[in-house]
Amino acid sequence: MTRKIIIGVMGPGDSATEIDIKNAYELGKLIAQQDWILLTGGRNVGVMDAANKGAKEAGGLTIGILPSNHTKNVSDAVDIAILTDLGNARNNINVLSSDIIVACGIGLGTVSEIALALKNRKPVILLSESPESQQLFKSFAPNLTFIAVDIQQTMKQIKEILEIVN
Amino acid sequence: MTRKIIIGVMGPGDSATEIDIKNAYELGKLIAQQDWILLTGGRNVGVMDAANKGAKEAGGLTIGILPSNHTKNVSDAVDIAILTDLGNARNNINVLSSDIIVACGIGLGTVSEIALALKNRKPVILLSESPESQQLFKSFAPNLTFIAVDIQQTMKQIKEILEIVN
Amino acid sequence: MTRKIIIGVMGPGDSATEIDIKNAYELGKLIAQQDWILLTGGRNVGVMDAANKGAKEAGGLTIGILPSNHTKNVSDAVDIAILTDLGNARNNINVLSSDIIVACGIGLGTVSEIALALKNRKPVILLSESPESQQLFKSFAPNLTFIAVDIQQTMKQIKEILEIVN
Amino acid sequence: MTRKIIIGVMGPGDSATEIDIKNAYELGKLIAQQDWILLTGGRNVGVMDAANKGAKEAGGLTIGILPSNHTKNVSDAVDIAILTDLGNARNNINVLSSDIIVACGIGLGTVSEIALALKNRKPVILLSESPESQQLFKSFAPNLTFIAVDIQQTMKQIKEILEIVN
Repeated sequence: MTRKIIIGVMGPGDSATEIDIKNAYELGKLIAQQDWILLTGGRNVGVMDAANKGAKEAGGLTIGILPSNHTKNVSDAVDIAILTDLGNARNNINVLSSDIIVACGIGLGTVSEIALALKNRKPVILLSESPESQQLFKSFAPNLTFIAVDIQQTMKQIKEILEIVN
Repeated sequence: MTRKIIIGVMGPGDSATEIDIKNAYELGKLIAQQDWILLTGGRNVGVMDAANKGAKEAGGLTIGILPSNHTKNVSDAVDIAILTDLGNARNNINVLSSDIIVACGIGLGTVSEIALALKNRKPVILLSESPESQQLFKSFAPNLTFIAVDIQQTMKQIKEILEIVN
Repeated sequence: MTRKIIIGVMGPGDSATEIDIKNAYELGKLIAQQDWILLTGGRNVGVMDAANKGAKEAGGLTIGILPSNHTKNVSDAVDIAILTDLGNARNNINVLSSDIIVACGIGLGTVSEIALALKNRKPVILLSESPESQQLFKSFAPNLTFIAVDIQQTMKQIKEILEIVN
Repeated sequence: MTRKIIIGVMGPGDSATEIDIKNAYELGKLIAQQDWILLTGGRNVGVMDAANKGAKEAGGLTIGILPSNHTKNVSDAVDIAILTDLGNARNNINVLSSDIIVACGIGLGTVSEIALALKNRKPVILLSESPESQQLFKSFAPNLTFIAVDIQQTMKQIKEILEIVN
């Protein structure tokens, strides 16, 4: 069995904040340093782009699950572009294919991904989410929803979850 | 142009409350009485099943967008079963194909549908949702998120939105 | 149980021949006269458009499974537009949702639909297909592949298959 | 730009012949030796499984695009499992995500993949296909359909196509 551990980093595209971008970049780097594969929505904006750039900086392997049928908007830091042509329906693939999902910032697409992840019984770490969304998701899946205050705690939680799962 | 108005009623399956079921049934009936088409996730449980039954009671036409590739779990009150075999990725089709979405109760699938609807710029009426989810979705799309306290207000809002859209 | 019989008519869009268009129109009419629902790919070109127009001429109900997330290219004769935003992946939904598929002319999209239909154990009637495609599909699924020389034979075959299935 | 070249190897699962399996294994090996990434349907049967095993034998990287939402039937030789939960609709992702597709043997799923690939203007190499399918696909897309008699010719054609494309 050669299957590799995949960490999905989800978050806003155009509406990402500076903090989201910074977190995503650092997270990508730390994920790559653990030899885990980074999976994102693959586009060349926001959290996706920053996480991929961080991972490549550290020599990691990056997968992008694109909504389109072409490579025009793919992040330059994506190694493997999966072209789904599914629009937002590809969000379900993002979460199914990840062992753990980190929500790094929040947008409507991210909300759909967190909900789909929890519905599929995947652990989700909420990094710098709003109190409303923390409460909402905790109420649905208390054992699968983790709250992290910074990337150090996020990495600690990923390791703990992987130990339980594997 | 013969295209018909489609109202999507979304909500929990197995975890639907008694109030959700009652609301969904009444809503289905009122939608059918307006000669609008009812669209749901199509399964034979919860909000989907109740809404379809209400619509058929009033002689309406019902469409179910199923996650499966077979008809084993289709509500008996679905006229037209669209078999997607997409699992939860079919949630995006539910909202894209509806002119207006009513969230009747809440579950993780419903959360994903509301988020995907708003991302696609579709109006969503939240009927008996939790304060957290109301606040969360209002914060993302204040002009597309409507709060209803009962089915009468829901019907009134649908009519007002249709007038603006058409 | 109120579920209705759905006949899927598939065939080329822009590259449809005059005969394909004529056949599709007549087929749509005859399907509607039997009170069956017509399902197509829903766009305003070729076999899809013609079949829908025929069905509406006879007062039938028409469903279009669109590849897009908008209604710009929907045939005017489609009553119910299902917006999938799946591109060509929607072809699998076309065939899964139909009780019987009629291939009316041939194109690459049609080839994919015939193959997916047979893989899903759905009966397919090949109307005016090329000898190569007839031979190819017969070799994979002899009991599910029917060859028709004209629309009268097509209708006769649909009735015979429905009797066996139901 | 770090994006890697992806070669898709498609072919029958349970109905693969001994020759298909042998070809797929050798092809997987040769693809890995060129440092290209192998993409398949990912299951633990037939052409998919054999191609992945060949690629791993040569130390390559392998991606599997699974129809399911779980990893029960994933080939042991798949490094990165993309869980789509799309059933056969995932066939469109297989071909969109590959730079070149090799059809190694034939089945109904493979027919759908060749058709979808050509519709998306992707080059397809037919290795040991039947004369009917060769003729059929050549007639639709003469410039994108390549016929190979063995894996050596297949590899030569892949290199020639990549030179033109890049």
